[in-house]
Amino acid sequence: VKPAPVGVKALAFDIFGTVVDWRSSLIEEGQALGTRLGLKVDWPAFADAWRAGYQPAMQQVRSGELPWTDIDGLHRRILNGLLAERGLVLAEADAAHFNRAWHRLQAWPDSVAGLLRLKAGFTLSTLSNGNMALLVNMAKHAGLPWDVVLSAELFGHYKPDPEVYLGAARLLGLAPAEVMMVAAHPSDLCAAAACGLRTAYVARPLERGPGGPMEAWAEGEFDLACSSFNELATALRVR
Amino acid sequence: VKPAPVGVKALAFDIFGTVVDWRSSLIEEGQALGTRLGLKVDWPAFADAWRAGYQPAMQQVRSGELPWTDIDGLHRRILNGLLAERGLVLAEADAAHFNRAWHRLQAWPDSVAGLLRLKAGFTLSTLSNGNMALLVNMAKHAGLPWDVVLSAELFGHYKPDPEVYLGAARLLGLAPAEVMMVAAHPSDLCAAAACGLRTAYVARPLERGPGGPMEAWAEGEFDLACSSFNELATALRVR
Repeated sequence: VKPAPVGVKALAFDIFGTVVDWRSSLIEEGQALGTRLGLKVDWPAFADAWRAGYQPAMQQVRSGELPWTDIDGLHRRILNGLLAERGLVLAEADAAHFNRAWHRLQAWPDSVAGLLRLKAGFTLSTLSNGNMALLVNMAKHAGLPWDVVLSAELFGHYKPDPEVYLGAARLLGLAPAEVMMVAAHPSDLCAAAACGLRTAYVARPLERGPGGPMEAWAEGEFDLACSSFNELATALRVR
Repeated sequence: VKPAPVGVKALAFDIFGTVVDWRSSLIEEGQALGTRLGLKVDWPAFADAWRAGYQPAMQQVRSGELPWTDIDGLHRRILNGLLAERGLVLAEADAAHFNRAWHRLQAWPDSVAGLLRLKAGFTLSTLSNGNMALLVNMAKHAGLPWDVVLSAELFGHYKPDPEVYLGAARLLGLAPAEVMMVAAHPSDLCAAAACGLRTAYVARPLERGPGGPMEAWAEGEFDLACSSFNELATALRVR
């Protein structure tokens, strides 16, 4: 492990997969919905398919094929497609509530305690493709103690577009090198590093379920690499 | 007092004067600076003049006379003018530090306790003309427990332009009537009400010093009127 970088004042956190466990949360919400409505669905596969629709949907926005659409809107488009493929019909209120499961994702077990430690030493920001309302509702629901909520929505660009990383540093009144991106996804960290941000990789081996795939990365590729927010706090010399 | 409005989900707080006591804070910072550098200045008058420059400076932005300039930039322009008028010359580091006194304003004595009560029942947002970095640094410094920091800076418009109030509701994913503006300034509340927001007036009789002027308002003009954040929490039925 390299020495902790000096001069970092704010930590910018990726959310889905890094701070919250989207897969388990969606499976649980799906199972509850299925029980209530008597639906036979493979909910782990459904959760994976919902998430798999996310990058292509953002690419449609990036390419201009879709006008700017927030993540609530993209999640709903993907959900509608998955339901149709499976011949499932939900009442509008049920579909809307299920789509908002993304506002109710549960934190990884170490997230809140680690963030509370880190908050004593740094400004803690979200930096997610999730829209502001989603991030605010999630924080309230999961008890995530952000100092400030920043979203791709504020910049009209989705990560890994540079506008998001540079926009966050600008709004925080900091130089890019004073901001450290924290993420479980090497691609997100590489894009942040290309904009001059510092980077901390946090391994989340269960993001795609036990034995699920993880993006490859190389030792030394990031400023820090750890396996929990508590380890990150220790690496950053926070009590 | 009218019954508390139903359906309010988020409270949007004006900051300067409503949550923090800009005048006492600036006077204290000025006095400390004056003592350190041996300056003879009437600091209460200086603080009042600095604040008095604020509305005309925002009007220059609104009229297009100035391009978009954040509050840090406007405060610095005003500060430079006040120093020049008084024949004072500060080293750049001193001027920059003094300008950032606006990031270090102290909360009114009831602010933090009241906000902590309100946070149990509502999403708490800033809605200030202060820039994001100023608001984030102030929250960290004064211990203000926001769920989300929203600023005029995100909308490229200063209050009382409607873009600010409507933009806040949009980013929160709420209808305007689900957002209550909280402010010590009737003009701010009237502009919010014109956009469909609910309104709570909080009297801050010491904002411009003991015996200082206060904007006039009429009984019944706002959904709620109270004299502290604790009273507001009680009026909103928060424990």
